[in-house]
Amino acid sequence: MNVGVVGAGDVGSAVVELAEAYGHAVTGFADSRSAVVDADGIDVASALSTKRTEGTVGSGDPEAVLDAEYDVLVEATPTTLGDAEPGFSHVRTALERDRHVVLANKGPIAERYGDVRELEAESAGSVRFEATVGGAIPVISTIEGFGTSRVDSLHGVLNGTANFVLSRMSAEGLDYEHVLAEAQDLGVAEADPTFDVDGTDTALKGVIVANLLFDGEYSIEDASVDGIQALPGTLLELAREDGQTIRLLAEVRNGSVRVSPRLVPVESPVAPTGTHNAVQLDIENAGQMNLSGRGAGGVETASAVLTDIGRLSGKQTKR
Amino acid sequence: MNVGVVGAGDVGSAVVELAEAYGHAVTGFADSRSAVVDADGIDVASALSTKRTEGTVGSGDPEAVLDAEYDVLVEATPTTLGDAEPGFSHVRTALERDRHVVLANKGPIAERYGDVRELEAESAGSVRFEATVGGAIPVISTIEGFGTSRVDSLHGVLNGTANFVLSRMSAEGLDYEHVLAEAQDLGVAEADPTFDVDGTDTALKGVIVANLLFDGEYSIEDASVDGIQALPGTLLELAREDGQTIRLLAEVRNGSVRVSPRLVPVESPVAPTGTHNAVQLDIENAGQMNLSGRGAGGVETASAVLTDIGRLSGKQTKR
Repeated sequence: MNVGVVGAGDVGSAVVELAEAYGHAVTGFADSRSAVVDADGIDVASALSTKRTEGTVGSGDPEAVLDAEYDVLVEATPTTLGDAEPGFSHVRTALERDRHVVLANKGPIAERYGDVRELEAESAGSVRFEATVGGAIPVISTIEGFGTSRVDSLHGVLNGTANFVLSRMSAEGLDYEHVLAEAQDLGVAEADPTFDVDGTDTALKGVIVANLLFDGEYSIEDASVDGIQALPGTLLELAREDGQTIRLLAEVRNGSVRVSPRLVPVESPVAPTGTHNAVQLDIENAGQMNLSGRGAGGVETASAVLTDIGRLSGKQTKR
Repeated sequence: MNVGVVGAGDVGSAVVELAEAYGHAVTGFADSRSAVVDADGIDVASALSTKRTEGTVGSGDPEAVLDAEYDVLVEATPTTLGDAEPGFSHVRTALERDRHVVLANKGPIAERYGDVRELEAESAGSVRFEATVGGAIPVISTIEGFGTSRVDSLHGVLNGTANFVLSRMSAEGLDYEHVLAEAQDLGVAEADPTFDVDGTDTALKGVIVANLLFDGEYSIEDASVDGIQALPGTLLELAREDGQTIRLLAEVRNGSVRVSPRLVPVESPVAPTGTHNAVQLDIENAGQMNLSGRGAGGVETASAVLTDIGRLSGKQTKR
């Protein structure tokens, strides 16, 4: 397939770098300031090198990528709340051109799910978003495989940064501030980790799952969200004495989304260590199903994007 | 879809019972001695009740189901080794009629994979076999989703009976013979549990995964297999003192299949308790992925069969 990629952060860059190995050609690639477009396939090595040395992927207008020749547009710009722009407009442009869309950006599918599905219904293209929940872990396609109406609930850990902080606090008896600084030194936490530790990122993922399970139009406004910033290290120590620990859990069940620090047994399938993610699904007839693995990382998330593109390969658009 | 079901054990019966809820009609149903066939859909309740009271599903010739009007034939007769008959002939008949086949029977896909793929290549029908490995857990479709060539290895627990026995031996410090008798009382182990405890069942599942990963023609002859019958309870106690336990692991990697009792940390993702199954996949770019859940049970395995049928629904045969 010909792939256009908007967004040149860790995920977008990894998609561009790995696309050829997955049998696809990159015909357009844009960051927020520039683009490179070539219907015969861009020079990937050159674009990534230019990005590293000069901070731009090429010399074209970033909007040019939206009009390029692609079968699938990969939307990998940063997640934004509210109107989910500019991601949402990119999705609209591609669908109006009857192209497929694969999202790594959570915004459009968490904040404007109904709008996206409406555009999709009028398009020959399809929308996929495996990479938005659980990184490399196939949470979305597993739910789709069983049938969204047969999955009663999901709960688990969907943010690696918060999980790393809680794991370290528990294992070492250290304070939140201390561990967060360590996580930033290690590159596990961003310079501004607000959305990771205050539960926003986890909530957006929970909302995406809720949209799928309950066929709804949930947005982050509908989620109840508590973060981990105020957790005293002593609480984790207390939990540990009883074979318990604390994890920032997303709970999607009975039509609601809740994110909060919760006490769970240390050996619980939803108590991964380090930056791992882990979810448990409750599925009619199949019972409880646990999935865990790498929930973040450019290459891991790109693998989910490329797997989505593979699923679309069998699916021709009508144009 | 119209579904024909051969085999009226726990899995076949559960498929027949649940089919309507998944949007399918059962047009034929056979056990080893009888069949009931109706192009408009059989009376499921009556067939299952006749099976319970009289031991047969109806009054027809069991072969009649193979000629019935179905889009998908579900092969749920007991697994046999070597020529994998009569399952293999059922698969052949359906594929030669350009119908899809969904297997719960491991025999044809473990022992005659090359023959099955050859018949499939000449047919308008497709073959699916999610239910043959890991019960309700979507092991096969997860591997297919990432691309079989990108999954480097699988290891884990694929037999619930053996796992129950090892879990109990470890938790209670009891001997193998004692726990096995208990498992038989509970219905977790069959009257003849040979294939579960000697590793044969696990090996067949490992061989199926090897056929998929290495695109080979493996059979159980190619697997190295050790069972759990000779494990002294004291060994499990010794392991436990060091935070370890013993699990009957299938290891599919580097072109080989090995089944043997292995020492693993108690908190390892491949050390499920009770009758659960758990596998870890090593996937290019995605990293290590863990899946666990219910690896057996009529309803759970039927759920995998029905999910396979759902996947085929989108896929029209050419006839």
